[in-house]
Amino acid sequence: MHHVVIVGGGFGGLYAAKQLGRLGNAVRVTLIDKRNFHLFQPLLYQVATGGLSPGDIASPLRAVLNRYKNISVIQGEVLDICVADKTVVLKDGEMTYDTLILGAGVSHSYFGNDQWQKFAPGLKTVEDALDIRHRVFNAFEKAERATNDAERDAWMTFVLVGAGPTGVELAGAVAELAFATLVKDFRHIDTQKAKIILLEGADRVLPPFVEKLSAKAQKSLEHLGVQVHTRAMVTDIQADGVVYKQEDTEHKIATRTVLWAAGMKASPLSEVIKRETGAELDRQGRVVVDPDLSVPGYADILVIGDLACFKHQGERPLPGVAPVAMQMGRYAAQLIRNRIRGRESKPFHYVDKGNLAVIGRNAAVADLGFLKFSGFFAWFAWVFIHIAYLIEYDNRLLVLFQWAWNYVTRKKGARLITGKVDA
Amino acid sequence: MHHVVIVGGGFGGLYAAKQLGRLGNAVRVTLIDKRNFHLFQPLLYQVATGGLSPGDIASPLRAVLNRYKNISVIQGEVLDICVADKTVVLKDGEMTYDTLILGAGVSHSYFGNDQWQKFAPGLKTVEDALDIRHRVFNAFEKAERATNDAERDAWMTFVLVGAGPTGVELAGAVAELAFATLVKDFRHIDTQKAKIILLEGADRVLPPFVEKLSAKAQKSLEHLGVQVHTRAMVTDIQADGVVYKQEDTEHKIATRTVLWAAGMKASPLSEVIKRETGAELDRQGRVVVDPDLSVPGYADILVIGDLACFKHQGERPLPGVAPVAMQMGRYAAQLIRNRIRGRESKPFHYVDKGNLAVIGRNAAVADLGFLKFSGFFAWFAWVFIHIAYLIEYDNRLLVLFQWAWNYVTRKKGARLITGKVDA
Repeated sequence: MHHVVIVGGGFGGLYAAKQLGRLGNAVRVTLIDKRNFHLFQPLLYQVATGGLSPGDIASPLRAVLNRYKNISVIQGEVLDICVADKTVVLKDGEMTYDTLILGAGVSHSYFGNDQWQKFAPGLKTVEDALDIRHRVFNAFEKAERATNDAERDAWMTFVLVGAGPTGVELAGAVAELAFATLVKDFRHIDTQKAKIILLEGADRVLPPFVEKLSAKAQKSLEHLGVQVHTRAMVTDIQADGVVYKQEDTEHKIATRTVLWAAGMKASPLSEVIKRETGAELDRQGRVVVDPDLSVPGYADILVIGDLACFKHQGERPLPGVAPVAMQMGRYAAQLIRNRIRGRESKPFHYVDKGNLAVIGRNAAVADLGFLKFSGFFAWFAWVFIHIAYLIEYDNRLLVLFQWAWNYVTRKKGARLITGKVDA
Repeated sequence: MHHVVIVGGGFGGLYAAKQLGRLGNAVRVTLIDKRNFHLFQPLLYQVATGGLSPGDIASPLRAVLNRYKNISVIQGEVLDICVADKTVVLKDGEMTYDTLILGAGVSHSYFGNDQWQKFAPGLKTVEDALDIRHRVFNAFEKAERATNDAERDAWMTFVLVGAGPTGVELAGAVAELAFATLVKDFRHIDTQKAKIILLEGADRVLPPFVEKLSAKAQKSLEHLGVQVHTRAMVTDIQADGVVYKQEDTEHKIATRTVLWAAGMKASPLSEVIKRETGAELDRQGRVVVDPDLSVPGYADILVIGDLACFKHQGERPLPGVAPVAMQMGRYAAQLIRNRIRGRESKPFHYVDKGNLAVIGRNAAVADLGFLKFSGFFAWFAWVFIHIAYLIEYDNRLLVLFQWAWNYVTRKKGARLITGKVDA
């Protein structure tokens, strides 16, 4: 039986698996992921800011796929691939494939400044989100107990690097915490005096959106109390501050909390693919794929999701967002089905249903192609679209409930500081 | 103004604080806790077995107490107490008190075998629960990939040491996972062949309950598929197994997962109290208190909750359970109010509203004093009493919803394996 190995249980891998699961005995599928759950990353910033719990946005891969008897799930890490033997190498064994679907995703890039990582965590995993939650809530605790003004101000200053959707959403959520949720909780500090600063290297926030929406987003952020600095290039991050350059002038911000939402780099498996197949990688290390998502010259290796650099549509490669990954996953499964049935497949074509980014409690910007809008209605659309895409039904109801509650009360129940206690 | 320092935000400390908060300007209160949240420990086993998320059973202390303007919350750890100066010493400062309420609680005791801790974690903190969750779900993952029968069987064997309420509840929940929730999720193992073994040193499970209910509980556990061994004394725990003695015969169980629910020891602050006041400690290190909960000879130091050994009612000291701690917390606050107003207080008297322990999905045992019952109705009572006591309203609704959903579907959505990935 044709054996498909899928590496990665993100949006791409999961949608590919579900589609292949429907083929029943025509294929045998093995899905390999380092973790035992699929994570709904678009809501991860809510975990980081205490609005949701990790369990609310995670679905156990086994539970999601258990109805498909032709799918095995393996929790494991793929260390190497040998294309000559059609084998993937795990820490504790090997496995051959007939077709390989690679959806191993991306992690943060600090543009060669990896020493920044410990001062400025990014937001990709559940552990990242809990680390950021720890830092944000702990900062207010430290400010409450600070013994001088300089120390207090540094703990009350939050810097976000990168004004893509994640940076904008995080900035809005931290502003909401400081200026609404926590207002009554402290006795020695006024959380409304917190500074939330968003630094962006480009000339506007949300560069993937049209300019008009970028301007609206910036206005909404400023209305929420976020200071936005564009054309601001970060040149150094230390434990006690951030240095950035704006129009040749260097500025330093004294802060104890820096969050990184700027750069991405591909999974190390893209280097393996390059070594094995000679495939081209783009600047972020993504694999440049053929119009049918295969690695050039290797029809049996398909690359999907954030790990793929797809240049055959539009001026720029397709962005690394969930809808692209889902459509690629589904396409990869259909391609395999067509091949088994001896049919041709059309090239992959992404149907862009638009861009959405949320800014705090009431505002968002939406670019649906034919319609661009912002404000409360965009926010509402954002909430419902995101909840509708949560993989499991109970998660949807729970998150909707939690969201409605948070909205009405402005509370954030999930603000536990966990992990290493440094009280 | 009279300054009350409360150490510990568990049931005792929190109920004392809320009661003192109502006195307004008559007292000034500082609540110190290592963590920024109150934890509803009776439901912690649900977090450990994937039924609930940590955020569902935690309430931020600041949020719970923010309406009381006379209360300050400090996240910090009390390292020492000087009764001569009426001062508590934190890592980063000192604070004087007029009255000290000590509710610092207990942690696990391995009866002098601390080397067992890394193989057999206990269940006291959120981190403990996530560690146990990791071990339990990871064990099934390892079993799925095991390469021989002995290895597979060891991963499929779960041993719980101690058949108090926590051990019984954990055993029931793990049995439910193996024999219901996970049944369809694996391809290479049959989770219904898992062994769940509960070891208890006493001659029956749930020793605090009457014998008839202990027998019912054991029957319910066995019906669920749990193997119960009483009069079983654990003599060794290693990475690959547990050794126990029963009627002079030594038995060894090959297992990779051992959970500890046996012994408790008092917070190190009880030793500080002993050193400073000469107070007597009991075998578990709890402070033996006067009838008004004060340390003998020190009317300004009150000890409450699990840390107090109260011998003035009944044959045995009061048990370390939430209702005792709540009533002690409230009493301590009333005592302080009476003193400020120059009034006498009656000695503390615990009103026992009964004991409840849950066994899996449909069964529990209840001992309400005037009424002893078991089965589905006891389970139902257990669920509603526990949810009713959750501190915050939104948590109650969420947990009720989650519970109803889990009950109907037998799903466990929160089964993320987080922390160090050892895939």
